[in-house]
Amino acid sequence: MHGYTANKDDYLKRLRRVEGQVRGIAKMVDEDKYCIDILTQVSAATKALQSVALGLLGDHLACCVVDAARAGGPEANEKITEATDAIARLVRS
Amino acid sequence: MHGYTANKDDYLKRLRRVEGQVRGIAKMVDEDKYCIDILTQVSAATKALQSVALGLLGDHLACCVVDAARAGGPEANEKITEATDAIARLVRS
Amino acid sequence: MHGYTANKDDYLKRLRRVEGQVRGIAKMVDEDKYCIDILTQVSAATKALQSVALGLLGDHLACCVVDAARAGGPEANEKITEATDAIARLVRS
Amino acid sequence: MHGYTANKDDYLKRLRRVEGQVRGIAKMVDEDKYCIDILTQVSAATKALQSVALGLLGDHLACCVVDAARAGGPEANEKITEATDAIARLVRS
Repeated sequence: MHGYTANKDDYLKRLRRVEGQVRGIAKMVDEDKYCIDILTQVSAATKALQSVALGLLGDHLACCVVDAARAGGPEANEKITEATDAIARLVRS
Repeated sequence: MHGYTANKDDYLKRLRRVEGQVRGIAKMVDEDKYCIDILTQVSAATKALQSVALGLLGDHLACCVVDAARAGGPEANEKITEATDAIARLVRS
Repeated sequence: MHGYTANKDDYLKRLRRVEGQVRGIAKMVDEDKYCIDILTQVSAATKALQSVALGLLGDHLACCVVDAARAGGPEANEKITEATDAIARLVRS
Repeated sequence: MHGYTANKDDYLKRLRRVEGQVRGIAKMVDEDKYCIDILTQVSAATKALQSVALGLLGDHLACCVVDAARAGGPEANEKITEATDAIARLVRS
């Protein structure tokens, strides 16, 4: 059981769509489509991936981090540090 | 008392530095410096601001969110939603 | 012929790799892997997509925009505006 | 003369506003305002800085890069590489 388990089907559907977007971008490159049109699709796929990440992160905070905070002890601090590092990677990617 | 209170002096010092960076960028524009050199300074100031934001967010999770999680009730969920929204604004800015 | 034509095989290889990364992320969700590990993979895929976008944009500037600038006329301005808009979408995604 | 010279006053005005925003954020920290409200202001200042950067970059492409492309020779390639590197720093910041 994870924070995202309740929304698993939704995440899987969104990820399959991103996979299709990336395959579509490769097809555009292969068929020599116009660079700017390809870039528009890359921006859309990046935004979709980021949106999945924000969803997973929200579910993680709402579930795993809250549980750890309630349990207390050093594990609570570890979970917070771990989540903060993941947020930093996301902001910088 | 907030999550960042213990590090307040450090944040103030970093923000004064960013303020100086932005003033320096305005001076570069005023003195007709080369565009690319100005852009390099804008990227540096943006990175410094983001780093302050990530620090504040980590302190907030470690303190306010953990406290709310322990107290439980609807306020815990509200704090998580609020933090998640702030993270989304940060990732998209 | 586009700016990226000379590097087409390289872009196709990188995009296939991103496609595989996204499929791997879906598999991790399906197999209930730990949220933070999934987020690490999402950040990596986002970075890889952005790097493809920056490559395509550089090739576009070096080729199509330079050609338009040399040809002159209103088309040169249009190409610059179009490229600037694509950069803005990229920075904001 | 640079690409941004015609819009210099506008950039100076926007940068003074960002400087004021950053000073306001320091004041909020100093007065122990709520973390999430501070983060909202940091996101706004970051967005404002990015918007200045995108403007400067567009002016740079429209002017210096176009001029270099017309002049031709190795300098044209150098200008394109330099602009592409600046865009990469912006996207990653």
